[in-house]
Amino acid sequence: MRREALYLKIAKVIEEQIDSETLKLGDKLPSIRSIQKIYNVSINTAKQAFLELESKSLIEARPKSGYFVSKTSRRKFSLPTVGKLKSSQDEKPQGDLISKILNTLEDKDIRQFSIGAPDSSLLPIAKLNKGVINVVRTLPDGGTSYEPVQGSVNLRRGIAKWSLVLEGKLTEDDIVTTSGTMNALYNCLLAVTQRDDTIAVETPVYFGILQMARSMGLNVIEIPNHPITGVDLEALKKVLPKLKACCFISNFSNPLGCLMPDEHKKELVRMLTEHDIPLIEDDLYGNLFFGATRPKPCKAFDEAGIVMWCGSVSKTLAPGYRVGWVAAGKYKDKIIRQKFLQTISTPTLYQEVIADFLEHGRYDHHLRTLRTKLYTNCLQFQRAIEDYFPHNTKISQPQGGFMLWLELDKKIDTAKLYDIAIKQKISFAPGRMFSLHNQYNNCMRLNYGLEWNQKLDFDLKRLGNIVKSAI
Amino acid sequence: MRREALYLKIAKVIEEQIDSETLKLGDKLPSIRSIQKIYNVSINTAKQAFLELESKSLIEARPKSGYFVSKTSRRKFSLPTVGKLKSSQDEKPQGDLISKILNTLEDKDIRQFSIGAPDSSLLPIAKLNKGVINVVRTLPDGGTSYEPVQGSVNLRRGIAKWSLVLEGKLTEDDIVTTSGTMNALYNCLLAVTQRDDTIAVETPVYFGILQMARSMGLNVIEIPNHPITGVDLEALKKVLPKLKACCFISNFSNPLGCLMPDEHKKELVRMLTEHDIPLIEDDLYGNLFFGATRPKPCKAFDEAGIVMWCGSVSKTLAPGYRVGWVAAGKYKDKIIRQKFLQTISTPTLYQEVIADFLEHGRYDHHLRTLRTKLYTNCLQFQRAIEDYFPHNTKISQPQGGFMLWLELDKKIDTAKLYDIAIKQKISFAPGRMFSLHNQYNNCMRLNYGLEWNQKLDFDLKRLGNIVKSAI
Repeated sequence: MRREALYLKIAKVIEEQIDSETLKLGDKLPSIRSIQKIYNVSINTAKQAFLELESKSLIEARPKSGYFVSKTSRRKFSLPTVGKLKSSQDEKPQGDLISKILNTLEDKDIRQFSIGAPDSSLLPIAKLNKGVINVVRTLPDGGTSYEPVQGSVNLRRGIAKWSLVLEGKLTEDDIVTTSGTMNALYNCLLAVTQRDDTIAVETPVYFGILQMARSMGLNVIEIPNHPITGVDLEALKKVLPKLKACCFISNFSNPLGCLMPDEHKKELVRMLTEHDIPLIEDDLYGNLFFGATRPKPCKAFDEAGIVMWCGSVSKTLAPGYRVGWVAAGKYKDKIIRQKFLQTISTPTLYQEVIADFLEHGRYDHHLRTLRTKLYTNCLQFQRAIEDYFPHNTKISQPQGGFMLWLELDKKIDTAKLYDIAIKQKISFAPGRMFSLHNQYNNCMRLNYGLEWNQKLDFDLKRLGNIVKSAI
Repeated sequence: MRREALYLKIAKVIEEQIDSETLKLGDKLPSIRSIQKIYNVSINTAKQAFLELESKSLIEARPKSGYFVSKTSRRKFSLPTVGKLKSSQDEKPQGDLISKILNTLEDKDIRQFSIGAPDSSLLPIAKLNKGVINVVRTLPDGGTSYEPVQGSVNLRRGIAKWSLVLEGKLTEDDIVTTSGTMNALYNCLLAVTQRDDTIAVETPVYFGILQMARSMGLNVIEIPNHPITGVDLEALKKVLPKLKACCFISNFSNPLGCLMPDEHKKELVRMLTEHDIPLIEDDLYGNLFFGATRPKPCKAFDEAGIVMWCGSVSKTLAPGYRVGWVAAGKYKDKIIRQKFLQTISTPTLYQEVIADFLEHGRYDHHLRTLRTKLYTNCLQFQRAIEDYFPHNTKISQPQGGFMLWLELDKKIDTAKLYDIAIKQKISFAPGRMFSLHNQYNNCMRLNYGLEWNQKLDFDLKRLGNIVKSAI
């Protein structure tokens, strides 16, 4: 009895520290060994104390990083609202608003909460540069020759080998390299649709997909995205007969960070296979998971070759390299033909650098570090927003990636708020950008893929104050 | 009188050497100083002898390289036939034939007369590699960040400064960088046409343009190309009202190597301006001129912004880098929007390497060497073909670039001949690839952008024998 009481006593002390915010959301807990020393108890007792806190969802273990205050059971702020099923034939993307936001990205004096890539301080730039120098010295003809249209065989082999989550389903021959995921998506849409066709995307969704689809003359149906489980399959079912293709971010959708459960993915692929509707799966955030393992893509459940699995290193390693790929199932040959006609081939150098990075385990190493940082940042951002933003703020609970979605008071128009914030050198992405319809006007997307420090905390406080003053 | 007689005497000796083929087409003549010593005459006399030979079109001066046997006035073989005006709604590119040819490009044991790029032995690979290493060390964030959509400002500035032929008409702001010229052409066509529109191209023409246009659902009218002066403007005039765009290689068309005279270019731009028809000008060979100066592009005569001037370093420096650009006149903003939606941005590294190469005069230096080599090769190829091919062979007279077009006996089908040649490890591009119509079946394109040596001479002899056996 005494031992049991002891671990509960320790757990209670830590719980009080969490409640009083001595230990804040996102803070790292002392190691089990420290607990052992501080309380003069056995390792087992210390471990049991942590298990107790974990069972109450107050703390969370991160592989190889220790325990963190997660407090999911005591979230002060509720989840954002799920959108409604909407289809569009005439509505246009918010081109002007989007251009306005994109045009500030160059300004280094602005706090860039709006950018769609991790901050360069989180990237292994010195190692990548070393990779470039090594590769350029060994590349035949220094990379001046045309590469085979399908792309660097070393990179394709690397991706196939490294995609363990696909359980050996993929070979180098299944993959075509592209100029980033955006280029993969473009080619997938081009391969399976024609002007005036209808496609489905989730909502809210990355504005680039909406702009791309509309520029190709496609009609877009926006399928509600649950903030935790992603695409609403019941809603999708209703519009299925109209569709020529679906384009979903299955893992950590941008901006919600939600994750489709495996059962949903299986059911989605089953439904689409039945109707022979291709699924363009944008899996560019899949490796930035906060859970124990890398979530499977829908591709893992694809037997008929209808899933076009798109990936890249743009969100994890080097946005500017423009290295992406697609495993396009039965549409592969069409993608290769299109690639040839659009650009002949992709440059070899960066593909080889990434292949090298994969081959020597440097990518896995980097991803482990990056995931820990992003998860910690996610918790820090949630804590800061709970501290600094109005109490009726709703906040997403991302399970990976580096995007946070806020739903503010109904009175607030974040497009107008942006003009105020940018004068104070703070940029964010207004919610209206993420739909073709007139919605999400009181929402914003924040990028937490930044180096956490006091200045960042202060900038979130400033943004919170801007929101408060607007009500 | 005695001096005059002397230079004529020297000229006569050399002329006899040329006639007896002691000096062969493409051979370099002794220097003026050597002539001076050999004949014990003054520099002026030696020079006058050369002028005499030049006036008879027997020899030709190459800047900084000396005099060469050109013998254009005594060409044994006549020019290829000019095609007829043909339009197409249903005809398809020779996809299977093209794939067959492209699939052998990887094989290093094959003599690649079919490839559309200069051999890597003609490229300054060591210098380029050095450039890569220098750039990667100085690039902010090692090039991992997204570049502005319009492309590297250093490269755009470099191109604008270096395009002297455009007489300062171009600024960095007019240019958008692309993934090679092919990507520039693709985006230009996408910007100004829609499915079922009609465009004009020259004939014979690079098969990639035909495939691209057909894949976009465009109808193609093939305008006859004169082997010396290029696009037949009278033929073009007849179809002008049908056209949504023209796409021409104004300088050294592929495969004919012909060059539109300035007056034709001016008239072309005038005609198209009058009808507000955009001209997509593919000027990727313009710097590989054999004449005294770099020919002007049509863009130089464009006041209304209808010319979309496309260029790259793919045919001069580094095909695999995929660095190209377009100065798209009034269509610039549309091109930038398309680029964003297709790929966000282009990789910075190679653009900076090229910018650096331009900035320090290394590109000009390389081009001078390359042009001399290509011109010499062109003459050597013509001489070898006159020696080894049947006497009824017709042969183009390129004024730049590195492509030669042969018209063989009417009985010969070069698509069938290809199957015989490839067994003997020789590849060429059968003429049928260069039109949507059933023509050029007895033609072939040869790439002379190769390192000239005895083996190459022997391979041309082998090819000549294959042709002879086929009659």
